[in-house]
Amino acid sequence: MQKPKVGIINVSGYVGMEIARLLHRHPGVELSSITGRSAVGQGLGQLLPHLGDIDLVIQPELGDVDLVFSALPHKSSAEAVVAALERGMKVVDVSADFRLRDAQEYQRWYEFSHPRPELLEMAVYGLTELNRPLIAPARLVANPGCYPTGALLALAPVVKGGLIEPHIVIDAKSGVSGAGRTLSLATHFAEANENVSPYALEGHRHLPEIVQGLSQLNPELSFSVTFVPHLVPMSRGILTSCYAQPREGKIAMGEGGKGELLELYREFYRGEPFIRVVDVPPQTKQAWGTNLCLIYPTIDLRAGRLIIISCIDNLVKGGAGQAVQNMNIMLGFDEGMALKGAAVYP
Amino acid sequence: MQKPKVGIINVSGYVGMEIARLLHRHPGVELSSITGRSAVGQGLGQLLPHLGDIDLVIQPELGDVDLVFSALPHKSSAEAVVAALERGMKVVDVSADFRLRDAQEYQRWYEFSHPRPELLEMAVYGLTELNRPLIAPARLVANPGCYPTGALLALAPVVKGGLIEPHIVIDAKSGVSGAGRTLSLATHFAEANENVSPYALEGHRHLPEIVQGLSQLNPELSFSVTFVPHLVPMSRGILTSCYAQPREGKIAMGEGGKGELLELYREFYRGEPFIRVVDVPPQTKQAWGTNLCLIYPTIDLRAGRLIIISCIDNLVKGGAGQAVQNMNIMLGFDEGMALKGAAVYP
Amino acid sequence: MQKPKVGIINVSGYVGMEIARLLHRHPGVELSSITGRSAVGQGLGQLLPHLGDIDLVIQPELGDVDLVFSALPHKSSAEAVVAALERGMKVVDVSADFRLRDAQEYQRWYEFSHPRPELLEMAVYGLTELNRPLIAPARLVANPGCYPTGALLALAPVVKGGLIEPHIVIDAKSGVSGAGRTLSLATHFAEANENVSPYALEGHRHLPEIVQGLSQLNPELSFSVTFVPHLVPMSRGILTSCYAQPREGKIAMGEGGKGELLELYREFYRGEPFIRVVDVPPQTKQAWGTNLCLIYPTIDLRAGRLIIISCIDNLVKGGAGQAVQNMNIMLGFDEGMALKGAAVYP
Amino acid sequence: MQKPKVGIINVSGYVGMEIARLLHRHPGVELSSITGRSAVGQGLGQLLPHLGDIDLVIQPELGDVDLVFSALPHKSSAEAVVAALERGMKVVDVSADFRLRDAQEYQRWYEFSHPRPELLEMAVYGLTELNRPLIAPARLVANPGCYPTGALLALAPVVKGGLIEPHIVIDAKSGVSGAGRTLSLATHFAEANENVSPYALEGHRHLPEIVQGLSQLNPELSFSVTFVPHLVPMSRGILTSCYAQPREGKIAMGEGGKGELLELYREFYRGEPFIRVVDVPPQTKQAWGTNLCLIYPTIDLRAGRLIIISCIDNLVKGGAGQAVQNMNIMLGFDEGMALKGAAVYP
Repeated sequence: MQKPKVGIINVSGYVGMEIARLLHRHPGVELSSITGRSAVGQGLGQLLPHLGDIDLVIQPELGDVDLVFSALPHKSSAEAVVAALERGMKVVDVSADFRLRDAQEYQRWYEFSHPRPELLEMAVYGLTELNRPLIAPARLVANPGCYPTGALLALAPVVKGGLIEPHIVIDAKSGVSGAGRTLSLATHFAEANENVSPYALEGHRHLPEIVQGLSQLNPELSFSVTFVPHLVPMSRGILTSCYAQPREGKIAMGEGGKGELLELYREFYRGEPFIRVVDVPPQTKQAWGTNLCLIYPTIDLRAGRLIIISCIDNLVKGGAGQAVQNMNIMLGFDEGMALKGAAVYP
Repeated sequence: MQKPKVGIINVSGYVGMEIARLLHRHPGVELSSITGRSAVGQGLGQLLPHLGDIDLVIQPELGDVDLVFSALPHKSSAEAVVAALERGMKVVDVSADFRLRDAQEYQRWYEFSHPRPELLEMAVYGLTELNRPLIAPARLVANPGCYPTGALLALAPVVKGGLIEPHIVIDAKSGVSGAGRTLSLATHFAEANENVSPYALEGHRHLPEIVQGLSQLNPELSFSVTFVPHLVPMSRGILTSCYAQPREGKIAMGEGGKGELLELYREFYRGEPFIRVVDVPPQTKQAWGTNLCLIYPTIDLRAGRLIIISCIDNLVKGGAGQAVQNMNIMLGFDEGMALKGAAVYP
Repeated sequence: MQKPKVGIINVSGYVGMEIARLLHRHPGVELSSITGRSAVGQGLGQLLPHLGDIDLVIQPELGDVDLVFSALPHKSSAEAVVAALERGMKVVDVSADFRLRDAQEYQRWYEFSHPRPELLEMAVYGLTELNRPLIAPARLVANPGCYPTGALLALAPVVKGGLIEPHIVIDAKSGVSGAGRTLSLATHFAEANENVSPYALEGHRHLPEIVQGLSQLNPELSFSVTFVPHLVPMSRGILTSCYAQPREGKIAMGEGGKGELLELYREFYRGEPFIRVVDVPPQTKQAWGTNLCLIYPTIDLRAGRLIIISCIDNLVKGGAGQAVQNMNIMLGFDEGMALKGAAVYP
Repeated sequence: MQKPKVGIINVSGYVGMEIARLLHRHPGVELSSITGRSAVGQGLGQLLPHLGDIDLVIQPELGDVDLVFSALPHKSSAEAVVAALERGMKVVDVSADFRLRDAQEYQRWYEFSHPRPELLEMAVYGLTELNRPLIAPARLVANPGCYPTGALLALAPVVKGGLIEPHIVIDAKSGVSGAGRTLSLATHFAEANENVSPYALEGHRHLPEIVQGLSQLNPELSFSVTFVPHLVPMSRGILTSCYAQPREGKIAMGEGGKGELLELYREFYRGEPFIRVVDVPPQTKQAWGTNLCLIYPTIDLRAGRLIIISCIDNLVKGGAGQAVQNMNIMLGFDEGMALKGAAVYP
C-alpha cells in the first residue's frame, strides 16, 4: 500500500523546517514536495544543513500531495490554502489565516481583508485535545498559535467547568524562535541575549484567538483577558502563567482545594498522550523538543487566587508538532506517530 | 580631611563583591576592611580576579570602620549587624534580617527567632526613593530585597494615590544571579540555560516584604497580593509585571487615561536620579549594570486593567547599588556618587 | 522472542539520563534496571521529570540484565564493571576506567591504582567507526571520552594515511554539560554564562586518550599534541579545531589539494551512518541532540597548514549515543537503532 | 577653560554607541555632535534608550569638533575621515580603512580601491601599548580591529624578543556583538544561541592586520599565521588562544621556563594600566565591560609548545575603549580617563 504524500509550503521558516524534521521520521507518510519563499532549486540540506538526510529540492510550486502544511506568513497563507483545497488536498495551515471565525477580526488584528471568509466556518481550530472529534473529518485545520496553545490548555478545565471568573491575566514568557526566522533588531543575538522584554502591550494578535477559544469553552462567560507576552533569552519554549479568581463557592480555599483542583485537571486530561498534569511547577526545558504540554494548577491560598502554569515547546506543541498531531488524526494514523520521545535534557 | 572608612562583611557573595566594585570607584570613602565566610587570608584579587585592582586581604574579623555593609545570609547577618552597631558603626544590612517590622514574620518566613526584635523598629527600610528622609539620620538601614525593590517602585504611585484596588498580581522574571553564589541544581548552568522556571509558588520570602511596603504606602488598603517569581536564563536583571484593577472612577479608561497615568508617574518620581519613567515598554538590558529603575505604566483598555512594568539590575538597584545609594545619604555624600553611568549595552 | 534486558548504573548524571532517554525509544531492548548514587527508591520521573514516561524505580543494586551501561565516575566505575562482568553481563563503560591500555596512566592522570589492569587489554575502545570489528564480540567496551571522540574522528583519515606531521594543536570548545551534573563554581550559571574559559592547560585527562588513539591509527609516528579545552556558554556541543602540518609532498597546496582532502575524508568515512563530511564549516547546533559527527577538512593555503573541524553533541556521539551505538553492535541490532533523526534546530 | 569638543560619526553601531557611553562619563571632553546612518533627527535616547541621559540629537552632518571618532563601516569611513581631516579635526577611525600600510591590501581583502593611499603612511596604528609615542602627535589614529588587539597583545613580548618561530596558530572565540549590529542569519538569536561556529576559514580580514603587526614587532621574521575566528553564544568578549613553537634554546622547557616566560611578560608590560599578566588562565568575563587585556603565557611542556591566552572585551579594548584611550593621549589627558573600573561581574 502506498503511503500518503504530504508537502510543506514554505519549509524555510522555523515551523516549516520543524515539520520537515518530524515528517522525516514519520513511518506512515512520504514527504514528497517542499516549497520555499527563497532558495528555490537548492537541496534542502544546502539550505538547512541539519536536514541533510532529507533528499528533496526546494520547488517553486507544490507537487501533487494528499495533505499539505502551509507555513507561510498570514495573508499569503490564505491564498496558498485556497489553491490547495481547490486541488483537493487536505490542509493544515499553521498561519493565523483560518483560526478566527469572524472575518472582521482579520481586518482589526492583521490588517487585511480576508479573501475567503466563507471558509472560516469550515476550518477546524486544531487545538487537538479540545477539538479532536472535528479534526478527523476536517479538510482544513487551522493550527493554533503558540501562545493560545499554552494558554487554552492551561485554562480549559476551569473555564469549561465554570470555576473561575472571566477576568484573567495571562503572562507568557517565550523563547526567541517564537518571533520567527525573519531578521529584526529584537531578535538580533546581542540585543535579545541577557535580556527580558515585554512586547505588544497594546494587544497581541494572539489575544482574539485566546478569547475566542475561551468563549467556545464557555459561551456563557464574558471574558476580560489581559495577555502580556515577554521574550526571554532562549531558543525554544513558552511558559504561561495564568492568574484567575475562583468563582464563589466553586473551589475550596485550602490544601484540600488544591488537591481537588489537581484531580480535576487530571480527570479532564485523562488519557491524553501529550498533556501531563504535574504536581510541582514545571519548567520549559522539560518539554524541550517534545509535543508535550505540562500543566500545573494551584491556588494562592493567601490571596484566594488560582495560578495555572503551562509549558510547551513553542515550535512543537506550539507549532509543528501539533500540526503533525492533527495530520495524524486527519489521515487515520495513531495520533502520536513521529511525536513520541522524551525531552532532550539538559 | 580623612575619608570615612567602610567595610564589607562577606565580600564573596554576589552582592558583597558588587558593593566592593562600586566602592572601589567611590571618591569619598575608603574601603578598608573586608571579611569572607571562606578564603580568609587570600587577597581579594586571588578570590575574585575581576577585583584584582583592590589591594585588600580577606580578614577573619572586621576592622574599625565608620560604616559597614553586611552581606551575610539571613540570621547570620543579624548577629553581625548587632555587633557592628555595638562598636558604634553605621550599618547597611543587605540581608533580610531587619526589613520586616514584625518579629513573628521571621519565624513564619525565615524559620528563626529574631535575636533582637527591638531593633526592628529602629531599622529604616532602605527603599531610597520612598524613605529618603529617614535614611540620612539612620544608624541601621535594611536594604530592600531585589523583588520588593522592583515591585514597590512600580506600584508606589498608584498605591499611594489610592488609584487601584488592593488585589494585585506581580509576575517577576529574574536573572539567575538573584539566587546567589551558593551552588544548587537550579542554578547549575546546563539546568538553568534554555529554561524558564517559576518557583516559590507556596509563597516567596519577599512577599511579606512587598505587602509591608504596600501597606506603608497606603495603610487604608487591605492588600491581597499574588507574587510569582520566575528564573530566566540570564545573569542579571529583574523585569516585574504588575497587574491591578483601577478603582472605580479614578483613572480614565481611554488613551487620555494612559497619558494621565504616565504623567502621574513622572510627577511622583520627578527629580529622582535613578528612576526613569518611560513611554515604551522597557527591557532589563537597558538597566544592566546600573542603579536605574525603569518604569512603564499603562492601561489594557480592553480589559480595563493597569499594567505596570519595571526593570532593574537585581545586583545594583536590587542590591549593591541601592546599598551604596543609602550609604551616600547616611554619610552626607551626593546620592549618586559612584553610581552614575549608562548601562553596558549590549 | 524476548528482548534483551539492559540496565544503567548511575542514571542520574547527564550521560546516564541520556542513555535512558535513548533506550526508552529503542524497540529492541528492555530497559529493566536503573541505579543511582542518590535518590534510591524514587521513581525516575520524580528525579528527572523529563523521563516521566519511563516507569522505573531507582534501585540500590543492579538487577539481572544482559548488558549494562556504567555511568559512574572513574574509579567507582571500575569496581561496578568488574562486578557486572563477573555476573556474566556485557558492559559498556562510559567512564574512563578501561579506555587506556597502560595501567600506569591511571596513576598518572587519574590518581588511582587500577584495580584490574589485566582487563585493560580485553576492553575494546568503543570509537565505533574506527574499531567496529572488535566491538561486536566484545564483552567490555570502553566508551570514548567526549573530546577524544571529536578529535580522533577529525584526525583519523590524515593520521592513518600518514599525511600530516605528528605535531598537532587541538583547540576544543565544549558546552557546559561536558563538566557533568556535579555542582561547581565553574558551572554555576552566573559564572559560566557570558563567558569563555580555557582550562586544564597543565594537561587534560583526555590527552593520553587522544594520543593513544592517534598512535593506534599510526604507530610509526611519535605524536606531540597540544590539547586545550574551553568552556563556552551553551548546554551541549563540542567543536574541535585541529591544526596540523601536512607532510612534505603528501597534499597539494592549492585549491586542488583542498578538493583531494575532502575526497579523502569522504572515502575514509564512506557508508558511515553517523559521520557527515561537509564542504562548509559546520556548527555544533547542526549536531544538537544527534549521534552525528560533522567533519570539515580544509587547508590554510597561505600558511600551508591543515585545519580540520569537527562537531558533535558531547552527550550523544560524545557519550550516550555512542554507547547505544556500541550496544547495538554488541547485541546484533542495526547500528543506528534509536539513534536516527535530525538535529533539533534551532 | 573650555573642554575640547568631540564627535561621533555613526553612533548607532555597537562601537559608536559604546564610545558615546564612555565619553558621557569623561570629565575632560564635551561630546557635542553625533551622526547616524539612520535616525537623523531623533534624540539619542529615543534610538538607544540606555543612553537616555545624553541630551543630543542625531544630526545629518558632523558639527565642529576638535576630535572625531568615525565608526562607519569600511570604505564609507575613509571618505568621512578625509573630510574631517580637511576640516582640521583630529580623527580616531575605528574602521579598518587606515590600519593597513599597503593600499593594495584593501583591494585584496576589502574589495575597494583605497581613495587616499597617501594617508596610510601618516595614520598611526592605535594599538596603544605598542605604539604609544606615535599616538600623542598623531592627527589620524587607525584604531585596531578587535581580533588583532587580542592577538598582538598576546604575542608581542615573544615576537619582539624573537623567542618563537614565526609559524603561529591563532584560534579566537568571539562574542556575537563582534559581528556588529547589522542583521544577519548568523547573528539571529535562535541561530547563534546554543551554538559555536567557526567562520572565515578562507581568510579573515583581520589576518593581514595581524601579520602586519607581527612584522612590525619583528621585521626579521617571515610569519606564517593561521587565524581561525569562532562565534560563541555570548554578547561580548574575545578569548584568543595562540600556539607557537619556541625558538631553539630561547626558552627553558621546564617549570623554570614557565616562570621566566611569565616574568618576561610582566616586564614587557610593566606599568601598563590596562594590561594584566595573570598566572592562572583568564576568562572573558573578567574583562567584561572594561578596557583590560588579560594575558596568560604558559608552556605545554609535553609538546614543547607555547600557549598564550588573552581576553578582552571586544567592544571596549577591542573597540571603543581603546579608541578613547587613544583620544586621551592625543588630547593630553590621563590615558585611563573614563576607562577605569572593574569588570561588571557576574
